[in-house]
Amino acid sequence: MKTPSKKSATKAAASARPANLKVAILGFGTVGSSVARILCDRKLKGVELAYIFNRGVERKRVNWVPKSVVWTEDFREILASDADVVLELAGGLDPAGQWVRKALQAGKSVVTANKKLISYEGIALEKLARKRGVHLLYGAAVAGGIPVIPAIQQGLAGDRVERIEGILNGTCNFILSKMESGEDYSAVLAEAQSLGYAEANPTEDVDGFDARAKLVILMRLAMGVDLSPEDLTCRTIRTISAVDFSYAKDLNCTIRQISQAHLADGTLAATVGPMLVPSNSPLAWSRGTQNMVVTSGHYGGNVVFSGHGAGGHPTAVAVVSDLLAVVHNSFPVALPSRKAEVSGEPPVPHYIRFVVKDRPGIVAQIAGSLAEFGINIDAILQRPGHSLDQLPFVVTVEPCKTSSLKKALNKISKLDFLIEPPLDMQILRNA
Amino acid sequence: MKTPSKKSATKAAASARPANLKVAILGFGTVGSSVARILCDRKLKGVELAYIFNRGVERKRVNWVPKSVVWTEDFREILASDADVVLELAGGLDPAGQWVRKALQAGKSVVTANKKLISYEGIALEKLARKRGVHLLYGAAVAGGIPVIPAIQQGLAGDRVERIEGILNGTCNFILSKMESGEDYSAVLAEAQSLGYAEANPTEDVDGFDARAKLVILMRLAMGVDLSPEDLTCRTIRTISAVDFSYAKDLNCTIRQISQAHLADGTLAATVGPMLVPSNSPLAWSRGTQNMVVTSGHYGGNVVFSGHGAGGHPTAVAVVSDLLAVVHNSFPVALPSRKAEVSGEPPVPHYIRFVVKDRPGIVAQIAGSLAEFGINIDAILQRPGHSLDQLPFVVTVEPCKTSSLKKALNKISKLDFLIEPPLDMQILRNA
Repeated sequence: MKTPSKKSATKAAASARPANLKVAILGFGTVGSSVARILCDRKLKGVELAYIFNRGVERKRVNWVPKSVVWTEDFREILASDADVVLELAGGLDPAGQWVRKALQAGKSVVTANKKLISYEGIALEKLARKRGVHLLYGAAVAGGIPVIPAIQQGLAGDRVERIEGILNGTCNFILSKMESGEDYSAVLAEAQSLGYAEANPTEDVDGFDARAKLVILMRLAMGVDLSPEDLTCRTIRTISAVDFSYAKDLNCTIRQISQAHLADGTLAATVGPMLVPSNSPLAWSRGTQNMVVTSGHYGGNVVFSGHGAGGHPTAVAVVSDLLAVVHNSFPVALPSRKAEVSGEPPVPHYIRFVVKDRPGIVAQIAGSLAEFGINIDAILQRPGHSLDQLPFVVTVEPCKTSSLKKALNKISKLDFLIEPPLDMQILRNA
Repeated sequence: MKTPSKKSATKAAASARPANLKVAILGFGTVGSSVARILCDRKLKGVELAYIFNRGVERKRVNWVPKSVVWTEDFREILASDADVVLELAGGLDPAGQWVRKALQAGKSVVTANKKLISYEGIALEKLARKRGVHLLYGAAVAGGIPVIPAIQQGLAGDRVERIEGILNGTCNFILSKMESGEDYSAVLAEAQSLGYAEANPTEDVDGFDARAKLVILMRLAMGVDLSPEDLTCRTIRTISAVDFSYAKDLNCTIRQISQAHLADGTLAATVGPMLVPSNSPLAWSRGTQNMVVTSGHYGGNVVFSGHGAGGHPTAVAVVSDLLAVVHNSFPVALPSRKAEVSGEPPVPHYIRFVVKDRPGIVAQIAGSLAEFGINIDAILQRPGHSLDQLPFVVTVEPCKTSSLKKALNKISKLDFLIEPPLDMQILRNA
């Protein structure tokens, strides 16, 4: 069979008898080879690994896949083939987006781990898949080995999710949880790079773009809101230093890159960046490359999901699980989403770290500028042992709009005692 | 429409256009009224609450459901009605099992929160549902508000789950996490009863039967093994006392009712009962009535799910989510399961608490009996401040088979210095 016809589709669903599908893997990197490994190990009913596509495929060949597998570096060969399902594991918008579109148009089902593609073009691609009567599944696009996408789609559809807070980027979590023990950002980044957790150019990870794409997908599924990644502000973790962890500890907190979305009373807020997380929050438990998602539902309250966010095998599990859904012709509950924009800014408490050349009157000047914008100081923390020429100290402020604080900090930035721009982070409160 | 026909079923799946289904609620207790509340609040597309069935229905009537809803205490009226979906929220094997069977036979889809029914008869009922081409979903049967069933079915199908460790009974977790602060079992049980968390006869909860039914369902879905609840041993939490928490703390542990299943090299082990849990294990984080499930996959590693295990609203979210899957004609991936039995007994470390009338030579006698069965002592703990007439102390032993330890303890039980039978619990190790 080429494409599951409508008739065979129902039959499969009703009888739970899997079809026998030919599978093509696009991209034989870490995830692609893990998927092939699982398919060869598990010999799943109804699944036949038939094609492997990669640029310069000769250097990728392995001897542990069946001899019948066709290796190719020509995507047209996949497109013209009898493959029923394409597993797109190459990533990026181009050419992967073209491949996915063409495969769907050709009546092939697609399973992808491509968060960027799904965050930008997921809705259009899903429409195309529906039109062609085929599957488009992307459980591996968010939080790799944690089945948060099917859990939300199938298990939280009955709730009204009002809040999402997630650790969606394993590289940032590795860096920040390592920095907790006093190490410097640049040293830990170098370690992450040498371990293969971070790219030579780490911007996608540390500046928040990777997490943002995942948050956009989660918001679409959990809240029914459709945003483009560009609608969300990202803040980098590059400016966090060891001293921030030390002050965070004084506040019974640690620091994590948090992807956060709130939807209440029709007002939508969403952002990605480093935040102070209370030590007793589940979000503080994640160490190393772990991911975590906390959803908060109007009816069901908080649900926590945690596990390996990345890595070949965990991500491959999500891909193979989606492949099994195709084999069993299981379509997820697809609730509609509506175009939305970030419309609100809930007042939140902030941590602000200043580095100054000390002289009398600094706190008074800062307090004055904050007061001018209606911002109240909650606490001032200054640890001993720092040079007066380069003195880091921290001010925490009561809940205020981030944009108001930004205005105040813009003004404060011009004061001559500042050695570097002030760093501000939201302080998360436990639900 | 009466039953989704095969033709309309495919169409719904492919177009994601929901059908318009009439819904009957069986059982208008805590969960049933929460479900009705969500349906009335959310006005979900494709869902019409049409019937409410309860014994002595007159005392149940509320004025916030639509006037069009038919209230009845005669199940035959539901069966003969045009209801497309029956939500069975009454619980228990009888008569709920009859109702579910009759509804499926009549071509109605069924959503149920009934763990007992699904643990004993799930496979037969699923077969019946498949035969009739209708849905049978039971996401609310395990861990209420945590979508662990869809997460496993859809998201972990690609893995080979080798271990499940869960906190599946909120009542036990409430009792044990309260006892952590020094309170006595009977006082906390009374509190749980007054709060409505525990029944007047608490046996289902505290003796492990409720958790066991849920574990059987999880094992079926995650490991593909089909057992009857009776195949699993349960141990009660009634024998745990405040002194055990104090000794557990000395071992950097706390105590939780754990539902545990291991499948490795074809050997299956499964049990429910109080165990020592390391304080840094996710399982120690659960407080109050929270539930938690930790799965461990051969490829994807550990995944942690946590949230509200019980309560009207969280459980209702799972029911309404399943209802939406019926509306969208979304069938889960139904992997086959095979008849299995508990076949193995992995060696595990144990905690043994003795209460003795003190005299010289006791430890030597206990150590001798343990050695006789090949069991090695790991540590002996004895806190000061206890009466010598009723002295509790603890022995921990290196990994051994629980059945060997049981034999040793049977022998030790006959020794005259024992005031009560020794209490033994498995000590969990972090994965």
